[in-house]
Order: sequence, then C-alpha cells, then structure tokens
Amino acid sequence: MSISDIKSYMQSVGREARAASRLMARAETADKNKALVAMAEAINRDQQKLLAANEKDIARAQENGLEAAMIDRLALSQKGIANMAEGLLQIAALADPVGEISGLSYRPSGIQVGKMRVPLGVIGIIYEARPNVTADAAGLCLKAGNAAILRGGSEAIYSNQAIAQCVREGLRAASLPESAIQVIETTDRAAVGELITMQDYVDVIVPRGGKGLIERIANEARVPVIKHLDGVCHVYIDDQADFDKAVRIADNAKTQRYGTCNTMETLLVHTAIAEKILPVLSKIYLDKGVELRGDETARAIVASMNPASEEDWATEYLAPILSIRIVDNLDQAIEHINRYGSQHTDAVVTENYTRARRFLREVDSSSVMVNTTTRFADGFEYGLGAEIGISTDKIHARGPVGLEGLTSQKYIVLGDGQVRQ
Amino acid sequence: MSISDIKSYMQSVGREARAASRLMARAETADKNKALVAMAEAINRDQQKLLAANEKDIARAQENGLEAAMIDRLALSQKGIANMAEGLLQIAALADPVGEISGLSYRPSGIQVGKMRVPLGVIGIIYEARPNVTADAAGLCLKAGNAAILRGGSEAIYSNQAIAQCVREGLRAASLPESAIQVIETTDRAAVGELITMQDYVDVIVPRGGKGLIERIANEARVPVIKHLDGVCHVYIDDQADFDKAVRIADNAKTQRYGTCNTMETLLVHTAIAEKILPVLSKIYLDKGVELRGDETARAIVASMNPASEEDWATEYLAPILSIRIVDNLDQAIEHINRYGSQHTDAVVTENYTRARRFLREVDSSSVMVNTTTRFADGFEYGLGAEIGISTDKIHARGPVGLEGLTSQKYIVLGDGQVRQ
Repeated sequence: MSISDIKSYMQSVGREARAASRLMARAETADKNKALVAMAEAINRDQQKLLAANEKDIARAQENGLEAAMIDRLALSQKGIANMAEGLLQIAALADPVGEISGLSYRPSGIQVGKMRVPLGVIGIIYEARPNVTADAAGLCLKAGNAAILRGGSEAIYSNQAIAQCVREGLRAASLPESAIQVIETTDRAAVGELITMQDYVDVIVPRGGKGLIERIANEARVPVIKHLDGVCHVYIDDQADFDKAVRIADNAKTQRYGTCNTMETLLVHTAIAEKILPVLSKIYLDKGVELRGDETARAIVASMNPASEEDWATEYLAPILSIRIVDNLDQAIEHINRYGSQHTDAVVTENYTRARRFLREVDSSSVMVNTTTRFADGFEYGLGAEIGISTDKIHARGPVGLEGLTSQKYIVLGDGQVRQ
Repeated sequence: MSISDIKSYMQSVGREARAASRLMARAETADKNKALVAMAEAINRDQQKLLAANEKDIARAQENGLEAAMIDRLALSQKGIANMAEGLLQIAALADPVGEISGLSYRPSGIQVGKMRVPLGVIGIIYEARPNVTADAAGLCLKAGNAAILRGGSEAIYSNQAIAQCVREGLRAASLPESAIQVIETTDRAAVGELITMQDYVDVIVPRGGKGLIERIANEARVPVIKHLDGVCHVYIDDQADFDKAVRIADNAKTQRYGTCNTMETLLVHTAIAEKILPVLSKIYLDKGVELRGDETARAIVASMNPASEEDWATEYLAPILSIRIVDNLDQAIEHINRYGSQHTDAVVTENYTRARRFLREVDSSSVMVNTTTRFADGFEYGLGAEIGISTDKIHARGPVGLEGLTSQKYIVLGDGQVRQ
C-alpha cells in the first residue's frame, strides 16, 4: 500500500489509537478474552491464507537477496501458525492485571490510600522479520488494556497484514474497537519517525530487534522507550560451587542455544577451582564446536584456547564462542560483571550462603541467579505467560516484560468527606 | 565558582557519581540512617552559617531585581532550617526499600523466581529557588541507595553550597562516599545540558520547577525524565452526592491553598444538583475572593460568574480563579476530565457505589479520589514519608514519588542446579 502523506496518516493512526485506548482501559475481562480466543480461531482457520501471504514475503525477500538467517526468521510454518494461536489462548488464560488494587490502607487523616493497576495507554511496537510478533504483541497489549500500533519489518508486510486481519476479526467478535490494534500499512521508514515522536498519541515504544535498530530508535524517540540492548551474560563458578552443578549449568548456559540474548558469553571461574573444572568444561565446549577465548591464566590451564582481548569481555557473540576469565574471588567476579556486563542476566554457582546472598544483592542486572542457568531468563519460564521483550533499562521494568510491564499503577484514595487542614 | 571546561567537569561529576552509586547500592541500612541523622545534626548546628549564606543569595537576588514570589521561595528561616533537618530524620525513620524481595515462588522447572527492589543508580535533580530541595532530595536519593547529582537554581547557589557541606559531613560520618551526593558547583547553564545527556552516568532525571523548565528538559534529555507537568485537577459533584461533604470538599479543594499543583481548577457539577449547591458554593468562593468562570448553564444559576472559555478548561490557574461546568451525567464528567485534565488528581463526590467504582477505574489520572479533597495528593499524606515530586508520566511512577519511585525491581532466580531442556 502506498500512502502519500505519511505524517497525516500516522497522526490519524495515533488519534484512533488514543480513542480506542480509552475504551480498552475500561473493557471487561470477559470481552478481552473473547477477542483473544476469536483471534486464535481466525488464525487457525486462515492457516492457508497466512502461509500464502508468507510465501509472497519470502519470494520477495529471495528476489531482494536477503540473507538466509533473515529469511529463516521470516518463514511461517504450520506449526508456527498453530503456536501463534496457542500463544493467544495462553494470554486469554492469564489473570487480568487491570484494576487490581493493592496496599489500600488507612492514613491518620482517615482517608484510605492504595494503588490500582492501569493500562499504559497506547503502545508502539517496532519489530523486524518474525511475523509471529504481530500476534504476540497484539495479544499482550490487548489483555493489558492498551491500544497498540504495530510496525513490523517491511520484509514481512504481507504476513503481518494477513495476521492483522485475524486480529481485527477477533476484536470485532468481542465488540471491541478495531483500531485498538493497528498494523501500519506502509513500509515507508518515515512512519517510524512519526510513531516515535507522537507524544500526544503514544505512551511508550517497545522496539524488538537488533541493537542497531534499538539504539537508533532510542536516540530519535520523544516517547519513552523500553529498550532491550545487549545480553552479555555471565556465569561465575565459585570455588565453593558443587562441581556437577557447575558443569551442568556452565554447559547449558552456553550450548543449549547460541543465538539468544540470555546465553552466557563470558565464564568467570574462581582460581581455586579452575585447574580442576576448566579441563572438564573445555572438553565439553570443544566437542560441541565452541571456540574458547581465555585470559592468560585460563590458557595456562587449557592450551587450546585463543587469547581473549579487552573487547571480548564486552562482546555479545550470539555464536559458539565463549570468553573465559579466572578471578581471585567473588569481589573480582562482581566487579567484572558490573563493569563489562550489559545488566541482562548473570548467575553464580556456589554452595556458600553468604556469597550467594552478596551476589544477588550486588550484581546490578535485570536477572540475577544462583545455581541455575542464565537461559531461564524468559517470560514463560518466569511465569509471566509471555513476554513482549526483555528490558535492559533501569526505570519502569527490568528483565522480561509481560502484562505487568505493559501497565502502571495509579493512586486511588477513598474518603468519607475528609478535607485537609 | 567558575569552571572553565563544563563538559569535562560534568563528566568527572558523572564518573564519580557512577562509582559512588555502586557503593551506595550495597550500603547497609544502618549506615544510610547514620548519615541522614548526621546531616540533620550538621544542619541544625550550622543554622547561622546557612542563614548567612541565604542572605547573600537574597541580597544578590534583590540586586538582580528578582520578583518577590521568587525571593520568597528562596528565603530560608530558622523554622525552615529546622524543618529541613526534621525531614532528614523522618527519612531515616522510613523502612529501607532496598533489597526487599517479593513474590518469590516456585516454577514448574524447580527454580524460584521473585523480584528484589534495587536502587535506580544515579539520579539527576534539577530544581529552582527553594534551597530545602537540596536536603530533601539528597536524603531521599540516599535512603533509596542511589547517588545523586543536584543542580539547584543559580539564585540559590550560596544556600545550596552551605547545605551541601552539611550533606557531605553526614556522608563522611557514616563512612559513605562523599561523591554519593554532589551539588554542582557552577551556575553555568551548559551544566544542565551535560547532565541530561550523560547516558553513561545518569539513570534518571527529576526536574522540579515550572512547566517551562520541565518541558525544556524533557525535550533535550537523552536520559529518562520523571516529569511533573500541570495540575489541572477536578472535583465532580454527582447528583447523588452528600450535600455537606460536597460543599466541604469543593471548598477545601480550591481554597485551602491556591498555588499548589493538587488544587482544584475546575469544578464539575451534575445538572440535577447544580441549582441547589451552586449558590451555596458560590457564596463561599466569592467571600474568599475567588473569581468564578462558568459555562452558560452555571451562569444562569449564579449571575456573578464570568464566562469560561474553551481555554479555561485546560488552564492551571494556581490562583484564586475557578472554572465551573455543569454536566448531564457521570459519563460527561469523566469525558471532560480525560479530555481537558492533566492526569494529575481528580475526585468525585457521590454516595452511589456504582458511579464511585466507575470513576475510580475510568478516570486516567495519577490520583483518583472518592469523597475527599484533591489537596490530599501528597507524599506525606499518602504515607510515603516524603516525595521528590509528583509524576504526571505514565511509565515507571505515577503520582507522588517517594522512596519506591527512586527504586526499581530486578528479578532474582534461585536454583539447585536446574538447567533448561
């Protein structure tokens, strides 16, 4: 679709989203769930349509010479479509966070003061490639009582439009405003520029994609952005670690999947356990084809490591590469993580109570773990039901962002005629 | 003090704040309280020094022809100084929010997932005139485990520096890093420009001052800003209101103080109660010298009103002026508030359960009240102990921002060797 005046098109999208957000904020739980179920049904029913639309995107991507990994992310399968529908049903099954009242208690003046959880309003989502984000994001925003403006990648425009049709059908089935979830109908990049600066119409932007995209958006946005930057995650094996747990966790954190943001990129090992555990771990990693880059001490223990440079400590490989550093103690491990890490997810393996307690408190990351794998940092694993992203920001929401992160809390005050003296 | 290279000065302030923030995040509650008490003692002891410094500021302000209201806000009294010290003692008495763990529960995988409350890191505060903000902000940021960079108005530079000395003394007494609270030593405006763009060193900016200042900062900042814009607050008197409560609340909300952000600026009255209550209220207002500006229907009931223009509905008078509109029902009242209000504080007066419940849910403001006065929207009245401002933003914190608003929550995960399949 070609739209000649992007600014006025986006203004109109924003205006409609704002109006819809007011209705969504007061929508009943049953109606929101009804819409989610109807969306899931439409997606399952339209499987063939969605596959056909997706094929058009893929054909165009191949013509345009997109790289294989990108096309892989773009591709929808029958199973992928079924998963999308299932995801919407799971969101329907989650408790409605909107209107939840907490902490309501009496003050000396006689008024009761508490907080009520409320939607944020209008959420702009900017994402690349994966068309399933269209359904996931629509479902989460809707359940949290928000309106959403979705801006998918231009390479997925046909797939996203087909999914958007199912989403609209679901909204209609529940008599909710169709403009509650709008998928932008142009691939013009100027639309993004408008979206992230429409302060009157958009309350928060959630970009999903590579670091480059997110930094660009954060720099140009006038609307608050929930950012998901690097995942430079660490596992620190203490000398008081249980040997078997340490091996299992360090293996899983690196090799269960290489390309995810919660994959370990640097392994820190206490000097007193390094000689014993590094040969065992190195064999596991090398057998799986992981390139090891160690500091001098590590390389003295395992000869088959390449040297790690200063840059390695701050690098998110997203690949079968692992940097390894030997540290003298817990303090040095925490210092390393807070200095080189990206405040995403970091774990300690130790049986020492005091060190576990200190690690939990002193590591400044969105997820801090004891005796388990960084790979657990995930909305589903945390029980959020789903996630719209993982925040590496410090205000509003840290870590996996689910329904709660798409809401805020206002104060409510109940009185009986009290006035201020 | 004149500083030749503002950029490198601010970079050094930022670097030191970041380093101090790491130590503050792990500081023990007892040490933070010790510092607060020592600050209060120093302020009480240095009363004469503070008054002398304040006199220098006032003399300069008078030379520079500052307006009386500004000089009024600038002036410190013996009582004001005692209150500052008392405020710090009150903050010391508050529970420490840092490290509080909530929601820790088992997941099907066997891991436990919960949240831990953590400091935001480095907070930049930009404020005008009132020197007491220096002590208040320092105390709140410190108790919440943050480092702070304070940038007061140039007209209060001597007062702020004198208070800063007491603050530093308190930090020293508790062996906490002095650079945890830094008061910027230059009045050069370029320092603000640096402060709000030092993303590496500053986690959030809290501007306190007029709307102009806050909008300017929000527009230029690269660091997240907790904004406090207008307070266009409403009271809606429903036809099922208790008459006496309605009179008491509508009186108090407007006339208890005129210049505060939680003062009512527009009174909405249900048409069925208007003829009865408006003459009573008008007499009260007019006796107290409040100018009334009404819509056509209101003026038909009370002749001594001026006509209200469209602009009046969106105006924060901060003065003895009140706009009055007659509405047909609750829906119209909510519609008016969500359209013209500033999402600050709004109240309904009604004995009707369903209407109260709807008002609470559907009015999208940071504080929503039933049968009490908007004047209660305040950190002290809400039991926060103190406030660093009132947020009119939607993400992170809405309404009065106390210790909790100066913190965030990270995820903590406890395991026993679990890995992801």
